[in-house]
Amino acid sequence: MSLREDLARIVGADAVRDSEAARQVYDGDAYPIERSKPLCIAFPKNTDQVAQLVRYCVAHDVPFTPRGAGTGLSGGAMPALGGVVVSTKRMTAILEIDVANRRLRAQSGIANKRISDAVAQFGLHFAPDPSSQSVSTLGGNIAENAGGPHTLKYGVTVRHILSATLVLPDGDVVELGRGVPGGPGLDLLGVVVGSEGTTGIVTEATVRLTPLPAAVRTTLAAFPSVRAATECVAGIISAGVIPAAMELMDRGILGALRAAFGLTYPEDAAALLLIECDGLPESVEREQAVVEAECRERGALEVRVAQSEAERQSLWVARKKGIGAMGRLAPTIVTHDGVIPRSQLPQMLEDVAEIAAAHGLSVANLFHAGDGNLHPCIYFDEREPGIVERVISAGEQILRKCVELGGSVSGEHGIGVEKMDLLTLMFSPDDLEVQARTKAIFNPGSLGNPCKILPNQKGCHEHRMRWRGAAT
Amino acid sequence: MSLREDLARIVGADAVRDSEAARQVYDGDAYPIERSKPLCIAFPKNTDQVAQLVRYCVAHDVPFTPRGAGTGLSGGAMPALGGVVVSTKRMTAILEIDVANRRLRAQSGIANKRISDAVAQFGLHFAPDPSSQSVSTLGGNIAENAGGPHTLKYGVTVRHILSATLVLPDGDVVELGRGVPGGPGLDLLGVVVGSEGTTGIVTEATVRLTPLPAAVRTTLAAFPSVRAATECVAGIISAGVIPAAMELMDRGILGALRAAFGLTYPEDAAALLLIECDGLPESVEREQAVVEAECRERGALEVRVAQSEAERQSLWVARKKGIGAMGRLAPTIVTHDGVIPRSQLPQMLEDVAEIAAAHGLSVANLFHAGDGNLHPCIYFDEREPGIVERVISAGEQILRKCVELGGSVSGEHGIGVEKMDLLTLMFSPDDLEVQARTKAIFNPGSLGNPCKILPNQKGCHEHRMRWRGAAT
Repeated sequence: MSLREDLARIVGADAVRDSEAARQVYDGDAYPIERSKPLCIAFPKNTDQVAQLVRYCVAHDVPFTPRGAGTGLSGGAMPALGGVVVSTKRMTAILEIDVANRRLRAQSGIANKRISDAVAQFGLHFAPDPSSQSVSTLGGNIAENAGGPHTLKYGVTVRHILSATLVLPDGDVVELGRGVPGGPGLDLLGVVVGSEGTTGIVTEATVRLTPLPAAVRTTLAAFPSVRAATECVAGIISAGVIPAAMELMDRGILGALRAAFGLTYPEDAAALLLIECDGLPESVEREQAVVEAECRERGALEVRVAQSEAERQSLWVARKKGIGAMGRLAPTIVTHDGVIPRSQLPQMLEDVAEIAAAHGLSVANLFHAGDGNLHPCIYFDEREPGIVERVISAGEQILRKCVELGGSVSGEHGIGVEKMDLLTLMFSPDDLEVQARTKAIFNPGSLGNPCKILPNQKGCHEHRMRWRGAAT
Repeated sequence: MSLREDLARIVGADAVRDSEAARQVYDGDAYPIERSKPLCIAFPKNTDQVAQLVRYCVAHDVPFTPRGAGTGLSGGAMPALGGVVVSTKRMTAILEIDVANRRLRAQSGIANKRISDAVAQFGLHFAPDPSSQSVSTLGGNIAENAGGPHTLKYGVTVRHILSATLVLPDGDVVELGRGVPGGPGLDLLGVVVGSEGTTGIVTEATVRLTPLPAAVRTTLAAFPSVRAATECVAGIISAGVIPAAMELMDRGILGALRAAFGLTYPEDAAALLLIECDGLPESVEREQAVVEAECRERGALEVRVAQSEAERQSLWVARKKGIGAMGRLAPTIVTHDGVIPRSQLPQMLEDVAEIAAAHGLSVANLFHAGDGNLHPCIYFDEREPGIVERVISAGEQILRKCVELGGSVSGEHGIGVEKMDLLTLMFSPDDLEVQARTKAIFNPGSLGNPCKILPNQKGCHEHRMRWRGAAT
């Protein structure tokens, strides 16, 4: 095959795959609804090889899609028009650790957690902590502007990226940002972070390192209602405490945890709230006192406080394994991602329950409660005829409701292929036109990660119809 | 005059000025080197009037330049090609205060400090605190992505803007951001913040409100050398403390303070370090203990800790009046703005002293030390023949040195007309081309705030030559 041979000339024969099995593995990411097989998967090892691959694809009119670990939840790494998947799997080197200025430079294929592991000896870490962090890559985190439980205190990925090397979709290489605060000129780094690989392929980045907290206190409280738990969240914030993390899990998640791991919670618990305070020891103690007082005042049925790191890990199980636990309940899970103003949390939860019931679907909810970022998880068996369409329809109604309540259709999982059409709920045609023109600056053709983020792209109609036809 | 009458039809006759005196007042901002008179100044009162003004200017090929309070330090509000200045002076309304979700929406002409004053009763404030905050406007802060002493802990303006209404330079009106975290799609709000009014005119914005700290402790320490003071900064950060502010003033500032206000500092003090910790009382006490221990360990000659709000204000005088005090030493001051990696602070200060000496100029330095953001202030009498050219040359050398040391030519004062040519030190032609194309999306003509940020714009050569000819 010519394509395979041509790519092999750039990256080496052992760094190209095109077997049927490989093409199937790389036909999508963790968004389970849409799939599309690439012709080839290439594994470059540096910026230069990525640039050569991109230039080859442009010269031969072949679409290309960048891919990190494939843990994305909205289809950003799915090769919608086939072509070449450019995997960063071999680009995992740490290039520089600058402890004095708290910076680290690495290739974009490095796993998020490996960054933190490498600098733990200096009392530092890379703050973004998506649930996928043991495998998801720096480049993927940049593409999706990833968050995580500790985003409440430390902010999303864009706040932790100081500079990046970007291979533009025409093969040119540019450096964005300067590795120090105050990059002058138009903030293109801010556009690229969160652009889901549609503005180019980030091959290296310099990240900001954050001190590891000297002390951490973790609390898991069970409440008789979601409303009581959300009032506790509001009470803690009103008292002037911003915990590092504040995660809310509803009855659906509790049920899954009981079923999957035999975890026990009070009989009439309808919500769990996981709260973590970190920082200097005295400050953490003070915050912890506020947290425990608020939990009791809002009617917590039980308040567990970790007394050791092992106990802390066991409290986090409820959060970290919550979605996984649902795997026991059904073979397929779609995790939605929306945002609402924090004060609308109780209303939103009632709406989610109603929408799921109306579609005959089961739903469980997990919130980054401090941010108003909710993850309704719909679990189902995709072999049931017609259910995929109902899942899509329920998801869209949930996100419409987020927008109605003054929120957003995406908090941290991106738009990908999943939510392109929903952008029209939030943006006027003029707004979308400006976004499309901005994207076109970086990506003037339609070859670089096509059919993502923005609706109505050339050549994507057939792909859309293939997957969505039945539902729309 | 036809222009005046036409504009009066949009904003009312009492909201247009074109007297010689008015045109002189509006011929520039706080960057003293370049001036250019507008034909007219218009004072719209809302988004619709701004959009009408812009559409009028586009239809009649008249350049227009937005202006807040005119406190910008790099010439962003200077009407380089004349035309119309669009002042936001009458756009000062607070539109909504949402305490539960900690947000406030206001027109862009509101003074920064009025926002904080309006929400102090709820224990909240607007965190960006440029020195100009009693007059500088929300729109101006957005245009320059303003920082301030407390940026170290709270971050620059972009982190505090949730959404904005933007009148594009063709008169279209778009809304950017959603007022909640997680705005999906390309982050155009991030491009507009810091674009110095070249992407359009922000007429309204929703800002994030931050809790007022429960406790504040302020320390002013005098050191025998700048090196000792910078080592103290590094020591405090290494100990895991991020103060709310950490400001360093060198011997030049001390001299000015002594001369202007009769303030007394230890005889052999060569640097002052102002450190402010804020947060929960227990945490502040712990941080304060670290601060005082580090100050003594690094050889502080004197450590003053404020025991009351009045004492706190008096310690801040050294910082807040430092630049003003230099007005006693010379009639004109150019405040530069550069960034270096924090570890390069001592080296950079030596370089600044050398460059100033080589140009026969007097310089004093003020640093946001925690961020590595330095403000060398060159003070001089502009009536001295040839001195403006030496000031420009010294400034450029200082900023070149920042870049050599791995830093940036601008931290928080923008590029404006002052630093356009220096961008080539940091960005390749490809990089600048991408920035120019991004700007052109918002601003396809050359009428909206022309001749700012990006070098080599059409029609700007003559303006440049008029002002820079002698120096280049």
